[in-house]
Amino acid sequence: MRRIGRPVHHGRPGTEGVMTVSFRLGIAGLGTVGAAVVRMVERRRAAFTAAGLDLRVTAVSSRDRTRDRGLDLAGIEWFDDPVALARSGSVDCVVELIGGAEGPAKAVVEAALDAGKPVVTANKALLARHGAALATRAEDKGVALAFEAAVAGGIPVIKTLREGLPGNTISRVYGILNGTCNYILSRMEREGLTFEACLKDAQALGYAEADPTFDVEGFDTAHKLAILTSLAFGTAVDAEGVSVEGISRVQPLDLRMADELGYRIKLLGVAQAAEAGIEQRVHPTMVPKSSAIAQVMGVTNAVTIDADAVGELTLIGPGAGGEATASAVVADIADVARGVIRPTFGIPAAAMRPSERVEMQRHEGGYYIRLTVHDRPGVAAGVAQRMAEREISLESILQRRIEGAETDPHGRSGRPVPLVLITYAATEGNIRDALDAIGADGLLAEPPQVIRIERE
Amino acid sequence: MRRIGRPVHHGRPGTEGVMTVSFRLGIAGLGTVGAAVVRMVERRRAAFTAAGLDLRVTAVSSRDRTRDRGLDLAGIEWFDDPVALARSGSVDCVVELIGGAEGPAKAVVEAALDAGKPVVTANKALLARHGAALATRAEDKGVALAFEAAVAGGIPVIKTLREGLPGNTISRVYGILNGTCNYILSRMEREGLTFEACLKDAQALGYAEADPTFDVEGFDTAHKLAILTSLAFGTAVDAEGVSVEGISRVQPLDLRMADELGYRIKLLGVAQAAEAGIEQRVHPTMVPKSSAIAQVMGVTNAVTIDADAVGELTLIGPGAGGEATASAVVADIADVARGVIRPTFGIPAAAMRPSERVEMQRHEGGYYIRLTVHDRPGVAAGVAQRMAEREISLESILQRRIEGAETDPHGRSGRPVPLVLITYAATEGNIRDALDAIGADGLLAEPPQVIRIERE
Repeated sequence: MRRIGRPVHHGRPGTEGVMTVSFRLGIAGLGTVGAAVVRMVERRRAAFTAAGLDLRVTAVSSRDRTRDRGLDLAGIEWFDDPVALARSGSVDCVVELIGGAEGPAKAVVEAALDAGKPVVTANKALLARHGAALATRAEDKGVALAFEAAVAGGIPVIKTLREGLPGNTISRVYGILNGTCNYILSRMEREGLTFEACLKDAQALGYAEADPTFDVEGFDTAHKLAILTSLAFGTAVDAEGVSVEGISRVQPLDLRMADELGYRIKLLGVAQAAEAGIEQRVHPTMVPKSSAIAQVMGVTNAVTIDADAVGELTLIGPGAGGEATASAVVADIADVARGVIRPTFGIPAAAMRPSERVEMQRHEGGYYIRLTVHDRPGVAAGVAQRMAEREISLESILQRRIEGAETDPHGRSGRPVPLVLITYAATEGNIRDALDAIGADGLLAEPPQVIRIERE
Repeated sequence: MRRIGRPVHHGRPGTEGVMTVSFRLGIAGLGTVGAAVVRMVERRRAAFTAAGLDLRVTAVSSRDRTRDRGLDLAGIEWFDDPVALARSGSVDCVVELIGGAEGPAKAVVEAALDAGKPVVTANKALLARHGAALATRAEDKGVALAFEAAVAGGIPVIKTLREGLPGNTISRVYGILNGTCNYILSRMEREGLTFEACLKDAQALGYAEADPTFDVEGFDTAHKLAILTSLAFGTAVDAEGVSVEGISRVQPLDLRMADELGYRIKLLGVAQAAEAGIEQRVHPTMVPKSSAIAQVMGVTNAVTIDADAVGELTLIGPGAGGEATASAVVADIADVARGVIRPTFGIPAAAMRPSERVEMQRHEGGYYIRLTVHDRPGVAAGVAQRMAEREISLESILQRRIEGAETDPHGRSGRPVPLVLITYAATEGNIRDALDAIGADGLLAEPPQVIRIERE
């Protein structure tokens, strides 16, 4: 075998009398995930030993030493300062589970990489903001920076994008990346409840934070999407370039209309190759009921990858939770312990293209448009006319009477009524122009609701 | 970082002035998949170069040199003898795409491993029959034996089981592993057609062989399942230990009843940890309509993994086809080129436990039982009595009149009628005993239909 410049692993790992890889872990951050990682490494000791890996947690760091985490930390070195842990001679690999794009999390990761130590992290915010710079740093030192746990929890989507599809050109990646939003939309759909009611329940169950903005307005999904985009398309992580719209404006009526029309509404993150670059968008989305992703209910996550050779690949699994996230962290640890080093985002940082943002106005796709119109003659015709002027073709148009309302001899109640349009492929710009014109015509009693349709 | 006995990769691959891995591929077998691999390696050259890999096909071998495959083989060495290709000094990695458990495929793989060369193969039959021995051979030489393409085509399920879940104890793996069977069952369900009619169409479309036995009687699924079992449970591959039942006895009536009861029928391969060992079974299976796997229609494959930390993980994608299979082969090639060597089935061959077969009689689960009974008083009571004697609890019991049949004043037609039972968890042994007793009672006009239920 000819090789240039890189050594090869040889030998039978783990069998009797043969060498075992010894790997000392420093865990920075002992929250739910950190504690689960410590327990998992201990619980799976025999299995790792059989596989030729001697993994041990030798150091931990957290803010509060006195807190009872139900962990036996005997024999494990405690660091008040996580950066000191990263630099410690008793740590081969630093596992960053502090969280946050700046501050101690960033300091720990940088200190570890600078010390030539591989890093495993679950920190989506850090990767979304500083991914390209950290990848360069890791590659300069020739060490791994692994982050399976940063996106879609226990689903091995990073591994799949980075290692599973090198023969493919990827055209689109989309997914349900936030369990809180999917839980809320699932309940709204099943029980006909409002967003506000379901959010309250999600908060009571611990699925949503006291301040839910980051989740429900789509920013968490955008962070995760930006990481997937980089892996799928070889572009520098660009979370700022994601067009973001959350689920707080979705109404029970939209979910009912979606059901009637053969769709479900999911908050999707979508990264898609377009002529001008890579579209990155997060928004409530109509997906066909028969699609794999439409079946995903509750806090579960799912990612679909469209690639030229495999066609469509869908991965479904838990997106959060201490154990599921720890599972992804521990998988990264095992890879790193085996000496597996790959470019952080699949290709060397220097080879990554800058992100080419595509304005949302240029997005082309099907649209669900729910108008609330004054109930008088010619409204539907007026709406259709404005659509036609922008060459927007309508797949269907549904007008609903309000049940129980008193009507005149023409069946009109005099009250505003919903008028729902499904369009064939049209550009966002044309849709917005048409809606502005319809508004200027005085046909609307309320601002329009616009939900994009994602086809399989 | 302390390491014992294993070198570490260092350096930034692929960026300017930095080293690139050069890797010369010998492709043995130029059928649909082989030709697709040659084309894919060429098509993706720039992407591989950017990622630090210089992959080139330098040698090919096939039976018929004169056949036009639409490939440009200029500059590629031709071998009539694939074993000579495996030993050639111009090949770093051997890609075996000949197929078959014995003969040239086995000879090529063994020759390559003996020469200390890594092997990538799509050969499920070879792995199913000789997996443990080949794994030992590969590990003795310290080279990789990779086989992502052998199971579920383009779905990265081997990678997921081998690398994605080391922190987990797996309790069950099940999946739709044969596209032909899923295509036939999907059409039977959607169009109410017979097995025979759908098989003919599948043959006309090229989804089924002229002799379809291997696919429709479940043997192909059994081969693939045996490989998944080994990876999931750390046991030696034991295809002989799989209990196999195909789809040829499934009737349109069963699909209609399944639909009414909230199920779909899929041919599943299931490997499940039980008290006495690992159950391995292939059979038509009722799966809840709401499950992810129930949505999988047509030739698509899917695998669900139940693991303690991640819970449930489902992967859905193409199970066959030249491009999808080549995608898996090329992913393996890229891994091997990066010097990634792992124990073939996740743990060293020497550490793998022998398979502990569990007799099908001891399987415990829910059952769908469709009896064809004589239409006379007391039959349902007699059936229920025999079930109760074996402590089999019934979740539901459905008796159907035959539409349009003339009946007596009691509503009886005098003709045999279907009687469908759904049981709570019961053992296969008790079910079979009860059915024998019901048969001995003279209640049955036809042999019973038994389909196992797999719960989420």
